Amino acid sequence: MTEVTAIYYFEPETGTTPEFAAQAIADEETTGTWTDLSTRTDYVERLDGKVLSLKPSGDGYITEILYPAEIFEPGNISQYLSVIAGNLFGLGRLKCVRLLDVDFPKELTRFNGPNFGIKGVRKLIGTEKSKRPHVGTIIKPKVGLNPKDTAEVAYLAAIGGVDFIKDDETLTDQKFCPLFERVETVMSRLDDAMSETGRSILYAANVSERADKIVERARKAVDCGANAVMVDVITCGFCAVEALAQDPGINVPIHVHRTMHAAMTRNTKHGIAMRPIARLVRLAGGDQLHTGTVSGKMGHDPKDIIVDNKTLTDEYFGLNPVFPVASGGLYPGKVHAELSALGTEIILQAGGGIHGHPDGTKYGAMAMRQAVDAFMEGASPEEYAKTHRELRLAIEKWGI
Amino acid sequence: MTEVTAIYYFEPETGTTPEFAAQAIADEETTGTWTDLSTRTDYVERLDGKVLSLKPSGDGYITEILYPAEIFEPGNISQYLSVIAGNLFGLGRLKCVRLLDVDFPKELTRFNGPNFGIKGVRKLIGTEKSKRPHVGTIIKPKVGLNPKDTAEVAYLAAIGGVDFIKDDETLTDQKFCPLFERVETVMSRLDDAMSETGRSILYAANVSERADKIVERARKAVDCGANAVMVDVITCGFCAVEALAQDPGINVPIHVHRTMHAAMTRNTKHGIAMRPIARLVRLAGGDQLHTGTVSGKMGHDPKDIIVDNKTLTDEYFGLNPVFPVASGGLYPGKVHAELSALGTEIILQAGGGIHGHPDGTKYGAMAMRQAVDAFMEGASPEEYAKTHRELRLAIEKWGI
Repeated sequence: MTEVTAIYYFEPETGTTPEFAAQAIADEETTGTWTDLSTRTDYVERLDGKVLSLKPSGDGYITEILYPAEIFEPGNISQYLSVIAGNLFGLGRLKCVRLLDVDFPKELTRFNGPNFGIKGVRKLIGTEKSKRPHVGTIIKPKVGLNPKDTAEVAYLAAIGGVDFIKDDETLTDQKFCPLFERVETVMSRLDDAMSETGRSILYAANVSERADKIVERARKAVDCGANAVMVDVITCGFCAVEALAQDPGINVPIHVHRTMHAAMTRNTKHGIAMRPIARLVRLAGGDQLHTGTVSGKMGHDPKDIIVDNKTLTDEYFGLNPVFPVASGGLYPGKVHAELSALGTEIILQAGGGIHGHPDGTKYGAMAMRQAVDAFMEGASPEEYAKTHRELRLAIEKWGI
Repeated sequence: MTEVTAIYYFEPETGTTPEFAAQAIADEETTGTWTDLSTRTDYVERLDGKVLSLKPSGDGYITEILYPAEIFEPGNISQYLSVIAGNLFGLGRLKCVRLLDVDFPKELTRFNGPNFGIKGVRKLIGTEKSKRPHVGTIIKPKVGLNPKDTAEVAYLAAIGGVDFIKDDETLTDQKFCPLFERVETVMSRLDDAMSETGRSILYAANVSERADKIVERARKAVDCGANAVMVDVITCGFCAVEALAQDPGINVPIHVHRTMHAAMTRNTKHGIAMRPIARLVRLAGGDQLHTGTVSGKMGHDPKDIIVDNKTLTDEYFGLNPVFPVASGGLYPGKVHAELSALGTEIILQAGGGIHGHPDGTKYGAMAMRQAVDAFMEGASPEEYAKTHRELRLAIEKWGI
């Protein structure tokens, strides 16, 4: 294949035929513009975009556009986006347009991908054999706690049974909880928890920062003991993930949060679907990526999440699979629904669903693990709750 | 002021009151989540988000949310976005939500801003006194030309009268037109044009690339002679602009393209308006920024562009004003409408509207300058065209 195939949903403006509208996308993103050009030379023709297919779908149309691979700069994700997701969103000939998916040829996918991926992360936690889903938590409240109280919440979640702890997406290096002090304090308490329980627990410190400075910050966080790092990919850019993944000093998993994505992904008729974003995060080298929950506080279509997670885990140019993360409004009663829909190759994260447990964080973590155990043993949550107090209390508070 | 004020339009989901929905935004982006937390300490309360106002607007509501300044990490634009434009876009309680504007207190705006700004760019071109709008062009076709033919187009536009020439947003460093060879070839021909005409002309080479590598690329482009650089801010990130603006080796104006913005900005009920993006580009240090045309190929509301341009040029913490760029489907016949609506403190860019002129690029550039001269002299384009052949041909081809 010597082309990039991008798939779009669109609705043409009144008075514009779908054929014209699809060709306008192909033109705008390659060699064309709204008028003929005196400067167009014969040899440019090979770079013209082409409409491969066009068919009605719902209120609009789905089209596949072929972009010659030659117009992409190999390895430059920002440039890829300028073609597949560039000016087309503003074209006056279209009422709305949404990038649904993109397929790159091998020559444009020469990235290292995830250093750890699912296998590497499972190895760190010790779940290669059990294959159970990981349970994670987000420190809550998302901002405000000082390092000592943050560490205490992390400790309680850890002894309760979580595999993974992360900062929330807005917590970086503020005065009320400085990053490096936080990392040292949290890791010291997690060391206690790991000795007490004999289990491995990862803490992803949120190093989100200017992409040209993030490596320095992440290296220092790792020096302070962080055994994972977290980055907000949409606000920091795909290059922030790339920079972290390629740095030999940052030999820990990279947890990728997608805050701000819904500004582009939520409207089902316009913007960018999660799938191309998931592909690019995999190329860039994220080890774990949020793709949503089927039952949580953000409104997602389960079908989309299944497709997004397959994009992270299916064979793709030999790159390691990314561990999908279900997060946002989860609590123990919802674990069964999530795992039934999304499978067990997943990280289930609960913030409020752990720290809001009637008996507190430790018991909230236990309840989440019990809900997972129930599923793995083939028991219903209600049945399992009969003999597991923590799960029962969670279900009594939040239901199923 | 010790708070950040963010203004949103939103529509609540059925069954959710507007008061509840607005508070859900304030909570999600500060200390709250969907349930009560055992881990919330008393001292966290000072960081709670607050709903300052809420009033009906169209099909929904407009709300002002106050975020305590303390939850922002000064200087970290990625982190600012995670608060003002983060998870809220995905909240299930909202049908849609749009960030309309944001107001930062002084402590969060300690950025250098544009090094050149309008004044500095005008000085380079020599228009401090005449105050006429600048005329720019984009090399077209946007991709495909080799360096020699690119340089020839640039030369013709230059002798025709443009002040500013730029690469298109998808042209970076592809094999068919390598960046540094292109810069050297274009600048050599522009040197010819500058000697012939005695005028100054800027060429912004598109250095768009991973933000952690863009400075290296831009420095080399400047070494090769580029007297301006261009960056795609949405695909490369605000930090790419910051990195360029702060580097002492890159002592040329930074032209900021916004490709991909319409994935977020176009839907008037959801996503992010251009205004907060314009504010952040000014903080980050862009010297010129695309904000759209009132009459071009992208569908914009003139009122929005006027507000966006004021955001770039009004007094703002002493930062230099950014030169607004009107680009996208412009041609000579539309110059009058653009300048009438947007004023003359602007760069008018025409790609197809110059290179599509019946007599070619040089005459297209002359026609654009004639249209500007007509406006500055108070003549109508039709009147002026009677004595200016190039403008007349352009009007005959494309109308007004």
